[in-house]
Parts: sequence; C-alpha cells; structure tokens
Amino acid sequence: MSVLYDRVALIGLGLIAGSMALAMRRAQLAGEIVGTARSAETRAVAAEIGLVDRVVDTAAEAVQGADLVVLAVPVGAMGAVAAEIAPHLKPGATVSDVGSVKRAVIDAVGPHVPEGVHFIPAHPLAGTEHSGPRSGFAELFDNRWCLLVPAEGSDPKAVDRLRALWEAMGASVEEMDADHHDLVLAVTSHVPHLIAYTMVGVADDLRRVTDSEVIKYSAAGFRDFTRIAASDPTMWRDVFLTNKDATLDILGRFTEELFALQRAIRTGQGDILFDYFTHTRAIRRGIIQAGQDTDAPDFGRAKKAN
Amino acid sequence: MSVLYDRVALIGLGLIAGSMALAMRRAQLAGEIVGTARSAETRAVAAEIGLVDRVVDTAAEAVQGADLVVLAVPVGAMGAVAAEIAPHLKPGATVSDVGSVKRAVIDAVGPHVPEGVHFIPAHPLAGTEHSGPRSGFAELFDNRWCLLVPAEGSDPKAVDRLRALWEAMGASVEEMDADHHDLVLAVTSHVPHLIAYTMVGVADDLRRVTDSEVIKYSAAGFRDFTRIAASDPTMWRDVFLTNKDATLDILGRFTEELFALQRAIRTGQGDILFDYFTHTRAIRRGIIQAGQDTDAPDFGRAKKAN
Repeated sequence: MSVLYDRVALIGLGLIAGSMALAMRRAQLAGEIVGTARSAETRAVAAEIGLVDRVVDTAAEAVQGADLVVLAVPVGAMGAVAAEIAPHLKPGATVSDVGSVKRAVIDAVGPHVPEGVHFIPAHPLAGTEHSGPRSGFAELFDNRWCLLVPAEGSDPKAVDRLRALWEAMGASVEEMDADHHDLVLAVTSHVPHLIAYTMVGVADDLRRVTDSEVIKYSAAGFRDFTRIAASDPTMWRDVFLTNKDATLDILGRFTEELFALQRAIRTGQGDILFDYFTHTRAIRRGIIQAGQDTDAPDFGRAKKAN
Repeated sequence: MSVLYDRVALIGLGLIAGSMALAMRRAQLAGEIVGTARSAETRAVAAEIGLVDRVVDTAAEAVQGADLVVLAVPVGAMGAVAAEIAPHLKPGATVSDVGSVKRAVIDAVGPHVPEGVHFIPAHPLAGTEHSGPRSGFAELFDNRWCLLVPAEGSDPKAVDRLRALWEAMGASVEEMDADHHDLVLAVTSHVPHLIAYTMVGVADDLRRVTDSEVIKYSAAGFRDFTRIAASDPTMWRDVFLTNKDATLDILGRFTEELFALQRAIRTGQGDILFDYFTHTRAIRRGIIQAGQDTDAPDFGRAKKAN
C-alpha cells in the first residue's frame, strides 16, 4: 500500500479512532497520525501505548496541517468540535466522521466547514461492546462495510481518496443518501440496541427473579442481549436523540408486530407463531450466505468457553 | 467415569438428545443408548451417523428395558409420548425430559407415569440455533447449567443419579421449583427469543429497506438477533403456548419499559437514556464474572471472520 494522506488527525481516541490508527499503520496509509481526545486520561493512555504518532491537547492543534480530519466523537459533540477546528483547517483538506447517524452530523458539522475544505461523512459498520483507547484493533474493519454519504457536488477525487483509505483499512465501501442511511441503520442497529437495553433493564428490575439468577442462567438467550447493551452509553444516547424520527418509526412497527405475536400467545394461535418463526429463519440464512456471520454454532460458545 | 444407567432411551433425536448421546459416550455413562424419533428421515440420519447404539421405530419400543428415558421432543408433544410409553416402562426406571418449560410438562406427563417409575423433569440451559440429528456435539453442556425440577416426595437416590449424569456430561446442576423455573426462563430466554423473532420480522417486512440491505448491513447489531431467531420454530411455538402466563407477564414489563425509553427519545430527555444505558452495563460485567460468557470483543467477530 502507499500513503494516501500525509497527515491524518483523529479527533476522539476511542474504539473506532484507535482501530483506524492501527489499521492505517498496518497498511502504511498515513504519513503521520495525530490524535486528541477531550479527556486528559484518554490522551495519557493513548500516548502511553503509542496508539498514534503524536498526541496533542486540543482539536484545534490536531487539525493543523492535516490532510484528513476524522471526527470520532459522539454524534452530539460533532457540532462543537467542528466549530472549534474550522478556523484551523488546511485548504484542500478532507473532513470526515464515523458517526452512527448521518443527517444530524451533516446538519451540525456542514455549516462550519469552510470553502475549499471537503466534507465527506462516513460510517464504518463495525464495533464491539468495548470502548476507550485500549479497545481498538487493526482488524476491526476487515470484511465490514463502510458507508460514505457525500453531499451533492462533492469533489469526486476527494471521495475516491477516502474510499481508497477505507478499502485499504479492510472495509468494503458503498455510497448512500443520508436519510436512507439513517433508516437502514435504525432497522439494523439502532432499534435492536434499544430493545436489548430494554430487555436487560427489565431483567434487572425484576425482583422476584434475583439478579444472580438472571446472570447465572443468562446463556439461554439473554446473554446476547447483554453484550449489545454493554455498548457506550454516551454514544447511544446521542444516536437515539439524533435519529429520533427513524427510530420512532421502526419502534412503532416493532411494537405493532410484538402485540400481534403477544395476542397469538394469549389466544393460543400456534399456527401464527409457527409461521412467523419459520419465516425469520430465511433471513438468517441470507446473512450467512452474505458472509456477515459464520454458521458455527455460537449459543453454547463451545469453542470459546474458558 | 462409570456407567450410571445400563440402558438409556432417547425419545427425539435433535440437538439436545444428540448432544446427550455424544456426551454420555464421551464419559461412558450409559451401557446402551437407544434412540427414536417420529420422523423416518431423522431416524435414518441418526442410524447412518451412528448417533446412538440402536435406532428403533417407536417410542414404545425404545423404552423397553430402559433405566432412564429422556423425552427430548417439543413441549407440546410430551403428553402424547408419555401416554404411548407408559405401559412399556420398566419398574424402577426414571423418566426425565429436556423441555424449556416445566409446569406444562409436569401437567402433561405426570398423570401418565405409572407407580414405581420416577419422574424427574430437567432442563439443560444449552443449545445453538441449529437443530436436527446432525447438530449435536459432546461439549454442548460443558460449563452450562442443568435445572432439575423434582416433584415433592421424589426418590432422593433417583434424583442423585440423574444429577450425577448431568454433571458427568459437563453441566452444573441446580434444583428449582417448576413455577420459579418458568419465570426465570421467561426472563432469561423466552421473552428475549420472542423479541428477537419480532425484530427480524419487522426488518423483513420493511419494504423501503430492501432485504438485501438488511442482510448486508446486519453486523451493526441486528445479526445477533437473527442468530436467536433461527432457532427451531416448533420448539419455540410450544414454549410460548405452554409458558403463556410468565411470558405475557414479562412482555408487559418489557413494553412498559420500552415505552418509557421511547417517550424519553421523543421528548429529548438524554439524561434518562444515559442513566439507563449506564446501568445495564453492570449486568454484562456480572455475566462475564460468572463465567457465562467471555470478555473477548465479539461484534466484529474479527477472530472468526472467514
């Protein structure tokens, strides 16, 4: 691989930015990687483990001379960061982000981007339930998707360069309209996370079933919900607040379906349940065929236990 | 290990019974393992792969001379099987099952069990999303729980022997009251499965987001729901129909919580969301500490992909 950007500035040094730094190093895609984070502790850890080439104290300092600036902070913090860095951006630089919501980021960041700077929002569909500067790893984006959401009239060369970066970090890249992105992600990510959080909250709240029993017997299905529900609270708060319309839309459909199944249970209509459960199996097969998961039995976690 | 039962009869040859056969062989716990299934195709596959020592055509034939009979059929089929085998049970034998619901199994099977035969319901909390005679593996129960639900007045020696069998197959054993079992499982397994099925159904139904996009971008969270929702439809239909009260109880609590979070999203109350998401993280930590899952990052499935 060859260097695609002479200097990259990472604003925020959590799971995604840390993994980007490691993936860029793996393929030598950046001349220098500069990083910063709001928390002094995060900056100290990043410096200690050598996550990036240079850790600086402020976003304004980080973006100086950078050819690519990546906003890797919670969606709700993007606007303030954009306002801070705007006067310091290098002409011809590209500003991108990794937020899970795209319309809100465009609305918050777009107005701050000066003439002559390219703004190309992005969203890598990858992550783990871990967060912080120690959680990144170079392989996070391998075989995952990264969605680019360029505005109309974006410079094709700048878009192509960012696409090349993500591909060289291991991802497959697609372009998508911002509103469609937010709807697709509401279905495939945001509402599933909200539901997982809710189910874990219910279990915790249920005093007849003690916490220790819920934990002890979690392997029966609940465990997979707790994994999702361990994700970063700030990030997810911002996702729901900024993708409100699509989330509420999909939630409405979800409760409608759930009530239909609940009614079938109450009235003993087993055929409705059977047909529904048979139908959902086909989607699973599609996901395995698309290479987005393996067919290895995972519930028992036989291969990984201990 | 030493032989605990001279002859074991497995009624049903799916994931659980198949794994029991392999786990009993691994530790040489049974003198002979006889198996049967309603479907001729399942019996043929089991015979072909040598899953058990002897495959027979009927449940009545399978239980003859058996010291332990395990009903490993969907919960809704247990009563009919019990009626069929009752006249053929050996005096002093133990009848057990592996159903995910216990009160309904006791009500359906109990009346058929003749005097002098021990009836000790059981439920191993283990499984994968796969089913059928080829899906079993000897390690399925290792480090998992098996709950025994003996009726009052059960013969302690018969209970101890069944406990020893499950422990020798790798499980940790606890005893529990049937109603409490059904409530605990509604929280940790049944309602999570229903929710996963519903979410997958919603995604499939949403025509603005094409099926291929839902599948393509599933790694963002949805994927883990489809895994759960690929489980055996007959088994799950019966679970919901036979654990109706606890399922509807927990579902009611779930929708109550979900509506509270939905309202916080609609009204922009980020602090409520943040506090809720922070709280659920603690349960996840408890599960890892209890050894019921690993802390390895799994969302990216970096270690397993391709």
